[in-house]
Amino acid sequence: MRLAVVGVGLIGGSVGMAARARHGATVAGYDPDPQALRVGRERGAVDDACGSIAEALAGADVAVVAAPVGALPAVLGEVLAAAAPDCVVTDVGSTKRAIVAAVGADARFVGGHPLAGAETAGVEHARADLFEGATWYLTPTERTTGVLYERLHRMLAGLGAQPQAIEPEAHDRTMANVSHLPHVLANVLVSQAARALEVEHERLPAAGPSFRDATRVAGANSAIWTDIYLSNRDTLIAQLAETERRLAEVRAALAAGDAGAIAAWNERARSDRRTLLEVELAGGEVHELRVAVSNRPGVVAEIALELGRAGVNIVDMALYPAPDRREGQVALWIAGDEAAARATELIGALSLPVARA
Amino acid sequence: MRLAVVGVGLIGGSVGMAARARHGATVAGYDPDPQALRVGRERGAVDDACGSIAEALAGADVAVVAAPVGALPAVLGEVLAAAAPDCVVTDVGSTKRAIVAAVGADARFVGGHPLAGAETAGVEHARADLFEGATWYLTPTERTTGVLYERLHRMLAGLGAQPQAIEPEAHDRTMANVSHLPHVLANVLVSQAARALEVEHERLPAAGPSFRDATRVAGANSAIWTDIYLSNRDTLIAQLAETERRLAEVRAALAAGDAGAIAAWNERARSDRRTLLEVELAGGEVHELRVAVSNRPGVVAEIALELGRAGVNIVDMALYPAPDRREGQVALWIAGDEAAARATELIGALSLPVARA
Repeated sequence: MRLAVVGVGLIGGSVGMAARARHGATVAGYDPDPQALRVGRERGAVDDACGSIAEALAGADVAVVAAPVGALPAVLGEVLAAAAPDCVVTDVGSTKRAIVAAVGADARFVGGHPLAGAETAGVEHARADLFEGATWYLTPTERTTGVLYERLHRMLAGLGAQPQAIEPEAHDRTMANVSHLPHVLANVLVSQAARALEVEHERLPAAGPSFRDATRVAGANSAIWTDIYLSNRDTLIAQLAETERRLAEVRAALAAGDAGAIAAWNERARSDRRTLLEVELAGGEVHELRVAVSNRPGVVAEIALELGRAGVNIVDMALYPAPDRREGQVALWIAGDEAAARATELIGALSLPVARA
Repeated sequence: MRLAVVGVGLIGGSVGMAARARHGATVAGYDPDPQALRVGRERGAVDDACGSIAEALAGADVAVVAAPVGALPAVLGEVLAAAAPDCVVTDVGSTKRAIVAAVGADARFVGGHPLAGAETAGVEHARADLFEGATWYLTPTERTTGVLYERLHRMLAGLGAQPQAIEPEAHDRTMANVSHLPHVLANVLVSQAARALEVEHERLPAAGPSFRDATRVAGANSAIWTDIYLSNRDTLIAQLAETERRLAEVRAALAAGDAGAIAAWNERARSDRRTLLEVELAGGEVHELRVAVSNRPGVVAEIALELGRAGVNIVDMALYPAPDRREGQVALWIAGDEAAARATELIGALSLPVARA
């Protein structure tokens, strides 16, 4: 496999290292910063340090674009222009709607977002095991070529990641809730407390783990986060308004001195936290399902999204095209009896013939 | 010294244990629950299990009232009625304005609030070192007898706590900011995310340390926290309104697509966080170091011991396990340029990858 990595930083560099170590891939790297490229080469993240995007893309089977979110549409445009017709191109940007809207029409493009290391930027922190066990969101569309999606999925699963198909809108709403909103609240909390403590001439008391926990991510790297906030602004604006509404509700219950309402609200949070953080470890036997698919565009994406929506994790995936290339089979590996049964049911409901292998 | 402990739970029991161990005090305990009293006696929290408040107060030099916030005014009234003219009486309630307003006119009363353990209630979790290094707020008023305040201060410092005088209003505003508000936001965040993820049929992705950190205290013990929220309701209502105002500001900057305003707001949070977490005693700006660690047993202890041996103080620490639990990152906050440089060097010498965040 020949892999092009465009943007050799923490993520791009780690992809390169992992792909070399685990897939025996040859990695062609490009970065506008020659120093990053040099360090990437020294650290074993890339085999070939290329002088241009076109050079890196020459002969590539897979291209991973790890540029800053703000620069992604332009860089992806260049990459897709240089990529071969059968090269799958993905990005690692932390919001997906805008990017998919900008370049999603290209059948070779699948948006991506690995949930791994963001704070310690730079290829000098890259490591081959960065993606071990991490969710790696993918946003295939109905135009995405099945064979290219499957190649990308397998490549990422091989890096140790858990690829999971998701719609761009659902991705951005999920990230707004589990990442962007916590960051905004941390910022607001820390600055509000700083002003209040200034007024009181108080220092932060020598305790308060709740405050430390809640503000740990306050003031995260501005260069990265300004881009993230703005690229997901519509969703984030809606979520912020929702937070304000919920805070006003708490205020009203407090103003009414309504102990019952406060206790009930607190108990709901208790049970919500439990539900959210209960991680069902992807236990159980792994089942192989075979799905007969016509080679119409989008069918693999459709399956992946359907299972993704139902929370069924695809451990691995393989596509077996028939010799005539007009149809074939997709093999899916699903962990756990229940998840496999659910997957069979969901795929059947898509009117696709499915069987346990 | 003869100490009366009224309310033998986690806090009252720990006060009793520490006072016996460190001051050689004789502790007279009272609790409306005879079982708590019996366990307190067995565990060495009290010498004498008393049948009434009056009995516990007989001959006491100091009385610590550790009743639930809602019950405090009534219980404190009883205690002050039974206490000798030269007995100092304090409480451990987590809000202070209402209590001081109710009983502050008595020259023997000093409101108090130790910032120590709240979740694992009950005398069975009491321990003599619970207050080691903890801020213990005291709210003396102009009516407080100097000799009684000094006796209380010394007694508490002797338990290992750091007594700190504060006005009741400043206390409640500080606690609203560093404790009550983080708890409310954690609740709101977890329930808002639970609803959003339900709608998307998404699970919490296998990552998101920011979300985990921000919601760690969500749904804290309702029996304790309903009281706390309500007893500080005026201040908390004002702080919630302030949070809503700040969130609306962020929303406006996002709506305007104002990258400069977003970056400036984020940088303010960064500097506010640093200011708040700077420990003046340790001196200097606080630096955050990130260390990549495998999850082999003992690695965190090894780092802590190495820095401890070199006299480098760890202001704060957080562990971020990777989803596979086999590795992760440790964040360390170190005060002072020199200490941070020394820590970086020492950790590097342990062959662990370390970086300034």
